[in-house]
Amino acid sequence: MQARGFEFEVTATAANARCGRLTTPHGAVETPAFMSVATYGAVRGLSAGDLADLGAQILLANTYHLHERPGEAIVQSLGGLHGFTGWRGPWLTDSGGFQVTSLSDRVRVDDGGVTFSSPLDGAQRVLTPENVIGIQEALGSDIAMVLDECLRPVDREREDHEVDQALARALDRTLRWAERSAAARKREDQAVFGIVQGGVSHERRALSACSTASIGFDGYAHGGLGLGEERSVRREVIACAQAELPAAAPRYLMGLGRPIDIVDAIAEGVDLFDCVVPTRNGRHGLLFTSEGILTVRNARYKDDPRPPDPACGCPTCANHSRAYLRHLLHTGEALGSRLATVHNLAFYFRLLRESRSHIAAGTIEAYHRQIEAISEARAE
Amino acid sequence: MQARGFEFEVTATAANARCGRLTTPHGAVETPAFMSVATYGAVRGLSAGDLADLGAQILLANTYHLHERPGEAIVQSLGGLHGFTGWRGPWLTDSGGFQVTSLSDRVRVDDGGVTFSSPLDGAQRVLTPENVIGIQEALGSDIAMVLDECLRPVDREREDHEVDQALARALDRTLRWAERSAAARKREDQAVFGIVQGGVSHERRALSACSTASIGFDGYAHGGLGLGEERSVRREVIACAQAELPAAAPRYLMGLGRPIDIVDAIAEGVDLFDCVVPTRNGRHGLLFTSEGILTVRNARYKDDPRPPDPACGCPTCANHSRAYLRHLLHTGEALGSRLATVHNLAFYFRLLRESRSHIAAGTIEAYHRQIEAISEARAE
Repeated sequence: MQARGFEFEVTATAANARCGRLTTPHGAVETPAFMSVATYGAVRGLSAGDLADLGAQILLANTYHLHERPGEAIVQSLGGLHGFTGWRGPWLTDSGGFQVTSLSDRVRVDDGGVTFSSPLDGAQRVLTPENVIGIQEALGSDIAMVLDECLRPVDREREDHEVDQALARALDRTLRWAERSAAARKREDQAVFGIVQGGVSHERRALSACSTASIGFDGYAHGGLGLGEERSVRREVIACAQAELPAAAPRYLMGLGRPIDIVDAIAEGVDLFDCVVPTRNGRHGLLFTSEGILTVRNARYKDDPRPPDPACGCPTCANHSRAYLRHLLHTGEALGSRLATVHNLAFYFRLLRESRSHIAAGTIEAYHRQIEAISEARAE
Repeated sequence: MQARGFEFEVTATAANARCGRLTTPHGAVETPAFMSVATYGAVRGLSAGDLADLGAQILLANTYHLHERPGEAIVQSLGGLHGFTGWRGPWLTDSGGFQVTSLSDRVRVDDGGVTFSSPLDGAQRVLTPENVIGIQEALGSDIAMVLDECLRPVDREREDHEVDQALARALDRTLRWAERSAAARKREDQAVFGIVQGGVSHERRALSACSTASIGFDGYAHGGLGLGEERSVRREVIACAQAELPAAAPRYLMGLGRPIDIVDAIAEGVDLFDCVVPTRNGRHGLLFTSEGILTVRNARYKDDPRPPDPACGCPTCANHSRAYLRHLLHTGEALGSRLATVHNLAFYFRLLRESRSHIAAGTIEAYHRQIEAISEARAE
């Protein structure tokens, strides 16, 4: 670790899986941990108090979105993300590169950085490795991410050799950007994580990991996954990369995923996760339960007095029926999204908490099989 | 009072203003009281716990909306409004007539009731005095309202003598509907309030009040106000009606209003209020403060570190800046509406709490002038 106020300690292991404690200037995070996505500095109608009550330890904000609105200068003048939002625990900010390439079809990537038209006002914006570090330093997150190049799905559909060339070029560019990001750091109290790319190639992932590690970051992320590859393929490339990463540094799987995706990666020793799935699915009435996915908007639940998950003790399940939740989602009441999000986040936080317990108890493999068994199931 | 489990006790008076305690089967309400509007059984992203913490005593739900979705049979099967929504305190339901005539331009009113096309599916629906009581009995509210005829603004713009005839007819019809409503009651544990109409005519209001009182209800409401009449005119017609109403029964001003409208009516001895203003204005970024209305979406607040109202101790003001609130409202984050609604409801509940204190202390007139002084003011 290079940043001041950071420490990562592995506290238990079981095969490749591990528990740890990541200390940041704004508090400690027990890992493996799930980071709720707070794009604009808020999680879907939930207050900082709600999140703390649910067991949130660390939140993720989107650098690009906050750069657009309200702008990092305003966030900085109000005490950074912690002061601005009222969530005083740790923050991680992504680099914005992934959002930009997926949001806009008017994007150009060259060695200098990413140039695109803002969906907000059409004006041209440029993200470079240097200004992305600068924006995150102004936002004041505890953990910043380097700018990387993640190929868009459309780029992956071309001829094999073209894809191959594009991947090689993106990998090379990501590495040079990582070097520039490391050189651009000014804040000593902010950790910066490098990002491993390389598509689904074992060799490229290993090479990317090795080269990124040699630059020296406070932690490392797996980027460009969850884009359609098989679970087994993903596990393999994560394993290939992690063999080349320093064991003493935290590892973060970006943007994934369903519960089974998370436990798959926990089995490979990944420490940090984020994903919009619990919040986005909640909004659409898809609830994670101990018996599988519950599509609570279905007509069959219109007079169902049971809580979404009878085995769950979250505030939604403690106080409300499927019938009420369905009604709120059907009528577009904001409380519906909030209650669904509360439940899904409670499910994810419990998943991570139980994973930590099972790693410490040496029973994570059995737990992994248990989560796999419900991963395709539908709750009745 | 005819309904079982109800009691209304006047605990203090100052000129025409009065404090009281309305006991219902689900708890007591200190009056004057403000009822938050929970159209579909939820208040704008707020949980029952949030509402209790803010000092809510009683909520109002819309009979027509709940009849459409999810239907009163479902609400009844899940324990009525109290069980269905999780708000275990008192509920008042409106009669739906006002909503129907304001929502739909395909509405026909005759002596039988109100016939209209549902905006939901276009099918024909009929509200009668009898089925409106039946729906509310199924919903299980503590206080039900009779179906009344409230002339739409368009009807008020016709020639004077036409308006006059229409008002006379509506008044007469409302009275006959009130008699049918009283005859239709089956639940002994539900209070029913009659509704006084009569436009801005002193004579008609007095006649309507006298006739409605002679039918005998558990409480009485002023309907058809807040539709453009002057404050002084409204106060006069409220006073005319109340001279004819039994002092021992609670009085409710329906659908009003701004803080000054409420204190105006408190001065005339009104006990209960409801209005969408605090929740709707909150959603639009209009916040009530001790210095007047704050338009928090304005660019001038983009980096303002002050809470919406430095004199307010609500959870929003205790934890958040104008800059953050503006940002959330601008980016469409659901938390923005929630925080604004929390603040505005806190303002209203404080307004009513302070009114009660000032009535008890004999200083309500000075308080009335104080609220008047900020009623047209803009916060800086």
